[in-house]
Amino acid sequence: MVHKTMNDLSIPIKRALVSVSDKTGVAEFARVLHAQGCEIISTGGTKKVLEENGLPVTDISAVTGNPEAFGGRMKTISFQIESALLFDREKDKQEAAALGIRSIDMVVCNLYPFEQVKNRGADFDTLIENIDIGGPTMVRAAAKNFKYVAIVTDPGDYEELAQELQQNNGALSYDTRFKLMRKAFNATADYDAMISETMDETAGKLSVRLAFGRAKELRYGENSHQSAWLLRRNGTNHSYFDVKVLHGKELSFNNMVDMYSALDSVRDLKQSGCAVIKHNNPCGLSEGAEQRRVFEQAWAGDPVSAFGSVIAFNRPVGKETVTFLHLDAENKMLRKFVEVIAAPAFEAAALEYLYQHKNLRVVEYDPAGLTPDLDYRFLHNALLVQTTDRKLKEKTEWVTERRAELDEALLDFGLIAVRQVKSNAICIVRRLPDGDHQLLGMGAGQPNRVNSTQLAIARARENLKNEFEGSPQELEEYIAQQMGRAALISDAFFPFPDNVELAVAAGLRVIVQPGGSIRDKSVIAKCNELGVAMMFTGTRHFKH
Amino acid sequence: MVHKTMNDLSIPIKRALVSVSDKTGVAEFARVLHAQGCEIISTGGTKKVLEENGLPVTDISAVTGNPEAFGGRMKTISFQIESALLFDREKDKQEAAALGIRSIDMVVCNLYPFEQVKNRGADFDTLIENIDIGGPTMVRAAAKNFKYVAIVTDPGDYEELAQELQQNNGALSYDTRFKLMRKAFNATADYDAMISETMDETAGKLSVRLAFGRAKELRYGENSHQSAWLLRRNGTNHSYFDVKVLHGKELSFNNMVDMYSALDSVRDLKQSGCAVIKHNNPCGLSEGAEQRRVFEQAWAGDPVSAFGSVIAFNRPVGKETVTFLHLDAENKMLRKFVEVIAAPAFEAAALEYLYQHKNLRVVEYDPAGLTPDLDYRFLHNALLVQTTDRKLKEKTEWVTERRAELDEALLDFGLIAVRQVKSNAICIVRRLPDGDHQLLGMGAGQPNRVNSTQLAIARARENLKNEFEGSPQELEEYIAQQMGRAALISDAFFPFPDNVELAVAAGLRVIVQPGGSIRDKSVIAKCNELGVAMMFTGTRHFKH
Repeated sequence: MVHKTMNDLSIPIKRALVSVSDKTGVAEFARVLHAQGCEIISTGGTKKVLEENGLPVTDISAVTGNPEAFGGRMKTISFQIESALLFDREKDKQEAAALGIRSIDMVVCNLYPFEQVKNRGADFDTLIENIDIGGPTMVRAAAKNFKYVAIVTDPGDYEELAQELQQNNGALSYDTRFKLMRKAFNATADYDAMISETMDETAGKLSVRLAFGRAKELRYGENSHQSAWLLRRNGTNHSYFDVKVLHGKELSFNNMVDMYSALDSVRDLKQSGCAVIKHNNPCGLSEGAEQRRVFEQAWAGDPVSAFGSVIAFNRPVGKETVTFLHLDAENKMLRKFVEVIAAPAFEAAALEYLYQHKNLRVVEYDPAGLTPDLDYRFLHNALLVQTTDRKLKEKTEWVTERRAELDEALLDFGLIAVRQVKSNAICIVRRLPDGDHQLLGMGAGQPNRVNSTQLAIARARENLKNEFEGSPQELEEYIAQQMGRAALISDAFFPFPDNVELAVAAGLRVIVQPGGSIRDKSVIAKCNELGVAMMFTGTRHFKH
Repeated sequence: MVHKTMNDLSIPIKRALVSVSDKTGVAEFARVLHAQGCEIISTGGTKKVLEENGLPVTDISAVTGNPEAFGGRMKTISFQIESALLFDREKDKQEAAALGIRSIDMVVCNLYPFEQVKNRGADFDTLIENIDIGGPTMVRAAAKNFKYVAIVTDPGDYEELAQELQQNNGALSYDTRFKLMRKAFNATADYDAMISETMDETAGKLSVRLAFGRAKELRYGENSHQSAWLLRRNGTNHSYFDVKVLHGKELSFNNMVDMYSALDSVRDLKQSGCAVIKHNNPCGLSEGAEQRRVFEQAWAGDPVSAFGSVIAFNRPVGKETVTFLHLDAENKMLRKFVEVIAAPAFEAAALEYLYQHKNLRVVEYDPAGLTPDLDYRFLHNALLVQTTDRKLKEKTEWVTERRAELDEALLDFGLIAVRQVKSNAICIVRRLPDGDHQLLGMGAGQPNRVNSTQLAIARARENLKNEFEGSPQELEEYIAQQMGRAALISDAFFPFPDNVELAVAAGLRVIVQPGGSIRDKSVIAKCNELGVAMMFTGTRHFKH
């Protein structure tokens, strides 16, 4: 049910109650109220600030007939103030007059800074003292009676409201009051959410309250018969909601999900990196010294699937990098179509080049804003919360007779890759002659790990075939040489030695896995038998 | 920071303010208060109920000195009431005496039923009238001063509190008051969350507030270096949180996720059904007349991966079904170990059988409680909301020269299967001679659809080989015959004809896909060339 607003019902603000914890801009705003002939009622610290700014102020005690009492716990709450906010200006007019109640038309109030005090690590008694009682009462009373009263809870609104008051003879429109009312109830809801979470926490009990606003309706959800929305979490400085689409169509639901995975994939890379995401899995990943080369190496991870993918970079993108897409090629078959290309920034020339393709979404993101500590998963009316999977490895222990030269930077690259691939995940990674790292093949999402290993090997072989420029007779030799230098990384332990046999048959000689199976011994024995170097890291990376 | 409670600080409840919207049990509770010598202050409707029950009541006006005013908008809010709740019984003792304020030691209050009124479809003015102002003020004031005041917001607590009062000479402990305080702030947070969501809705703006409590700490998250919790959504009748572990270890994070997928897989099956889930994908699925047979058929979908899987049934489970696990086999190799077995109910004999295995988790769930309308996905400080993927198909249109006999029940079974498999998803399903349906092979989670098709075919061939009892020379003939009767279902359109070629090479003759590719024509042409019947359903089922 959408409530129809009535634009014509302006209310002159003749009497305002101003009582704020955050004093920012309050004097300037009160000056505008005063200039419009509005009487200002105020309390304690706020009153002092207004008076120092030369504004005439009525003390709240003159309205309530009560003193400020109990160390400030009682200031505004009274029959007089809440009646002045709550009575119906039509139905209750005579009753109010008989009771000596005069309308208050505006409340300017923000609440005791419970959250800031909490974040400063205050003790329990200080927290309790910072639970505002009078403020929320005024705010909620004014909001309930928004038909006649304006409730101002955000100093960020002063300027716009001042303009409206000045342009509208000291009155505010119904639409404005309605909007302010919604903001007020959002503020009191957020406030009590913070208090209840904190009080539960002090009792050693976890409760979670998540509030989201600023919704955007998306064209549709994961499929076109599903409706979908994206919302921003309230009260946060950084949100995935804030990514900027510089060019192209609106991001779809699936773009959002894939791009999230893309940004996750490149976030922890140490060098200039690029991820190519298809169906939520990185099918290409590379890092190195030169961004253009890195892009080519990531693309080569699965050059067929890369068409229609979502691409992310972790460094500002130059034109040299994006010309690899050949968007201006005469032969349309040479043009590489991707859904999304995301980066922390783009050079102007890169943007100019990318804007040639009208459907390509170009997205700028703030890398500082995308390091979540917690991962939330919603099941039906239940929430799974977990800390994010940040630690790459517990140890680096060779468990076989053979040890290998495995550069730690390549190992970390491989662990970042495998951490991002859906389980069961197998990644084959290599160090290129120029020191870059590349995901050479990956197997994702299989019930049986053997299938993931097969998929990763098949992909790696295909890619090596694509890059090989020698004669066909030399191909297998080249593959064996490259595989021999690569490392196979598994997200979880090998339950049986069969994966080792497959890897060795494909020419692989270095395997990294967390270890921890009851059959580790037989897996290690198989490695020793076949001359494989196997490292245990002690850290599993399931991702589902 | 966990606040240390002080158990010894009991507070005698000598004066209580009782003002409730929901009158359930209030007279009985007030009778206990009265019997302990407690004075009862009350308002309007509550006072009437208490007096009808023969209890002496002080009218609130006698305390506030004010009348009930403005059609009930002003009843309790006053300097007198909130002072009596808020003043510090030590520091402010003299000030209170000087102001004539006497302590109120308990508030019994529940709020105007905004949510129920909303659910009845009330108009905007009625909604506004049902925003409680006085109630939350009292509740929050009493909660803030819980060191001296007990705040009772839930009629469900009356009985326990009455017992404590009777056993404790009319006093309540610090622990009890602390717990009541937390409940109170949770109640006001929920109340304003509901109001703010509703007011945003009336403005045509979506906002979402999700509150979760009753947290359970899990042993760990998706991996052992991640901490994790499961929480229940507040104020809901059905939650996934409520599944009952009848036997075995606590459910792990991954059990939760896999079982959710398992329940999703069997929920919409028309016959008795069974799903076998590994790494969040159904590697086995079947439905039919006899549960034991259905279990065997689901297991046969991937008899290697089924070890360590999560199994769900959609009907009460009998002993005959579970003996298939051979838990009591002398030869331990014959015993089928699974992580979780979930069903709406279990026969006693089935439970007795399952309890033989101490690590097997046996879970009972309420099928009525697991039909979510909305799917929530958390990205970093942002929320993607979508309606769930409920519709199986838009149409059933043969787009090729050849048409096939494709039973609608088998089609729906195949669509349920493919909807549950991670994209790109391919499922091969068949109708068995007895009329049952079986997932014969599936390919999941591949960036390239061709790989999913290959995986599904390889799996189906392997399964057919396993079940074939004839001579090796006849195997291929048997596979061709079975594949020729099966249907291949794709979750999304075929981008190229290559998948058709693969399918035909494997003996498949019936393909179902949504259609909608720019290359549909060439895909259909390939089908016609190769004698395949292809159906378009018009409904894609991406799942990531």
